[in-house]
Amino acid sequence: MRKKQLPAGVQDKLFRRANGVYQLEAQMNELLRVRGFQRIETPTIEFAEVFEDEQNQDSLYRFFDHQGRMLTLRPDMTLPVGRVVASTKIDLPLKLLYSGKVFRYHDEMKGLQNEITQVGIEIIGFPSAKAEIEAILTAEYVLRKLEVPNFHLELGHASIFKKIIDELSLGEQKAEELKGLLLSKNITELFAFTQEFPSDLSKFIAEIPLLFGDVKNVIDKAKHLLPENHPIMEDLYEIEQLFLLFPSKTQEILRVDLGMIGVMDYYTGIMFAGFSEGIPENFLNGGRYDYLFKRFEMSSTTSVGWAMNLELVFDLLYKTQNNQRKNKILVHFETEEIAQVTDLVNAETELSLFANLSETLDYAKKWGYREVWYFKNGEFNKQEVETDE
Amino acid sequence: MRKKQLPAGVQDKLFRRANGVYQLEAQMNELLRVRGFQRIETPTIEFAEVFEDEQNQDSLYRFFDHQGRMLTLRPDMTLPVGRVVASTKIDLPLKLLYSGKVFRYHDEMKGLQNEITQVGIEIIGFPSAKAEIEAILTAEYVLRKLEVPNFHLELGHASIFKKIIDELSLGEQKAEELKGLLLSKNITELFAFTQEFPSDLSKFIAEIPLLFGDVKNVIDKAKHLLPENHPIMEDLYEIEQLFLLFPSKTQEILRVDLGMIGVMDYYTGIMFAGFSEGIPENFLNGGRYDYLFKRFEMSSTTSVGWAMNLELVFDLLYKTQNNQRKNKILVHFETEEIAQVTDLVNAETELSLFANLSETLDYAKKWGYREVWYFKNGEFNKQEVETDE
Repeated sequence: MRKKQLPAGVQDKLFRRANGVYQLEAQMNELLRVRGFQRIETPTIEFAEVFEDEQNQDSLYRFFDHQGRMLTLRPDMTLPVGRVVASTKIDLPLKLLYSGKVFRYHDEMKGLQNEITQVGIEIIGFPSAKAEIEAILTAEYVLRKLEVPNFHLELGHASIFKKIIDELSLGEQKAEELKGLLLSKNITELFAFTQEFPSDLSKFIAEIPLLFGDVKNVIDKAKHLLPENHPIMEDLYEIEQLFLLFPSKTQEILRVDLGMIGVMDYYTGIMFAGFSEGIPENFLNGGRYDYLFKRFEMSSTTSVGWAMNLELVFDLLYKTQNNQRKNKILVHFETEEIAQVTDLVNAETELSLFANLSETLDYAKKWGYREVWYFKNGEFNKQEVETDE
Repeated sequence: MRKKQLPAGVQDKLFRRANGVYQLEAQMNELLRVRGFQRIETPTIEFAEVFEDEQNQDSLYRFFDHQGRMLTLRPDMTLPVGRVVASTKIDLPLKLLYSGKVFRYHDEMKGLQNEITQVGIEIIGFPSAKAEIEAILTAEYVLRKLEVPNFHLELGHASIFKKIIDELSLGEQKAEELKGLLLSKNITELFAFTQEFPSDLSKFIAEIPLLFGDVKNVIDKAKHLLPENHPIMEDLYEIEQLFLLFPSKTQEILRVDLGMIGVMDYYTGIMFAGFSEGIPENFLNGGRYDYLFKRFEMSSTTSVGWAMNLELVFDLLYKTQNNQRKNKILVHFETEEIAQVTDLVNAETELSLFANLSETLDYAKKWGYREVWYFKNGEFNKQEVETDE
């Protein structure tokens, strides 16, 4: 009997969590709107072709329309935005914001969320350096406004991994293996890997799991591990130059992770990820993906963006908060008295729908209402609600 | 090449529409929260069994998980809320609010929306009359707050159609045929139908397409068309009694439609639908469905709710509005000046990401910014933006 069960990786959200995640989404929309981003909304359902160039095809939900065309639930919002920009005559440049659900299929046992509430931005067609600056400043801005505790943003570069693959001439399978070793920061296995594929980069590759933290120190260290004038140097300079442009307040929240791997295949340049002490996963992912539009047969266009997982941000913000007392007034009425009480409803006052006054009083006590009002001899009687405290 | 196309019945929303529908959703959430409703969020993906008792199974999107269990995209939110209440030990009574996407599959040629943004409420476990009152007052409250023009709410009753089916002993096919005739208000065919199935109710059935409008007049007229003490009289009294409870301000927006057919099969009592002159379809549907929980093996519990289609409400509200002038300040900067300008950003001031001042000025003019600021000799230069008007 699956009628009362939920599919793998999805959940019901009640009350505080449902409201909290929603309020976060609304606040983010407002903060981003004020910062000059314009909302775009693409459908939940797309043709599977929109995502065909991505790996992880296994994590797509797939189904068919009545003509037998393959549909999918969007696994991300950047590719749909790419589709919109490439297929309409929309004027560039643009600063876009979006929010909504994205879907990735994982089996039960993985314990992962298959439906996620995301908010994100896309900065399209502006000079890249300014777009990267604005993307990072905007992330900093919203995270400070939301009072996310102890957050920092890590910088990485999509080219580093790609250049290693090229130089070592790794096939798809070996490239995936290396990606796994970098993601798990497996030092022993990485060293073994450099023995199997010896190169000029061996020293650098073996140390990658340690190349994270303070931007200047890590970049300096990495420079010494690379052969002179190696193409990866350019990526390090790009990270360093970007870092140096920021005011010190922003520099304080920036770190680097040279082992960062893009969550989507379309990243081409600077990447960044948001972390906080409270949670093991990163709650923000972003970066530059100028070639995104080529997938939709449009010329390469600068494009920088990020997406934030609001379930994780909610966990960060509300882990320790308690339910609050309602502190409102509950108005009890007899059905015939409805005309007299309708105009009382406001932010402070709520109608009680219970049949009896005693039920209304019990409910008010249970949920921490301040007062109960009711009619008696044609007048309002205002009764304070006792608390157990 | 479907990579740049959209599936049937879904659309991209840009700028004013994307922002407008989103703002409506956020406003509705806030208004309902203030009125004492608590948010619930159920997943987009459910097991198909949750909806198995509904007709219109053809309009469900269906797909499979890796274990071969059938999944679907929710076509409505009331049944998932029923599932949550029946499968958890959640305390009743409750006033719930929800918002999000619902999905119904229709082929291209029908020109219908397959993905809709809904906001709605569920009032569960309170005495029915008060729950109906609160549902209608809440609809009135939000529609007035949103300043929806010329709206009215029509009352109907789910029992009327069911009692006709029973009395005429109509099979499923004939019942569907009658439903179609009532929905299309086809007087000629309805008369033919009463000839085919003659009964005490023939006079009433043939007149149903005309039984809508002013509550008192229509109920009076209907009473004269029905046999004395006919069970449908009870439904008419129920509508009349409910109508008479409301203050005159609410009565003014109430109408009746005795030919109303429930959009979902779970309706059992009073139903209501929201209309406005601007659009042909109803933008709100609701009613009482006490037997909803029986579908989830829980005892019958009073339950009243409604859902609103926000795309239609947006059409009503913003059909004639124009894009507004941004009236903001755009700050141009050289990349090296970023540290000096970051703190300027606020609700009035936005960073320009263009490489050159001239591009910034063109953009500001195009989008109606008020001023452009830029550095010159270490000071801010503030330039007013000329308009073409």
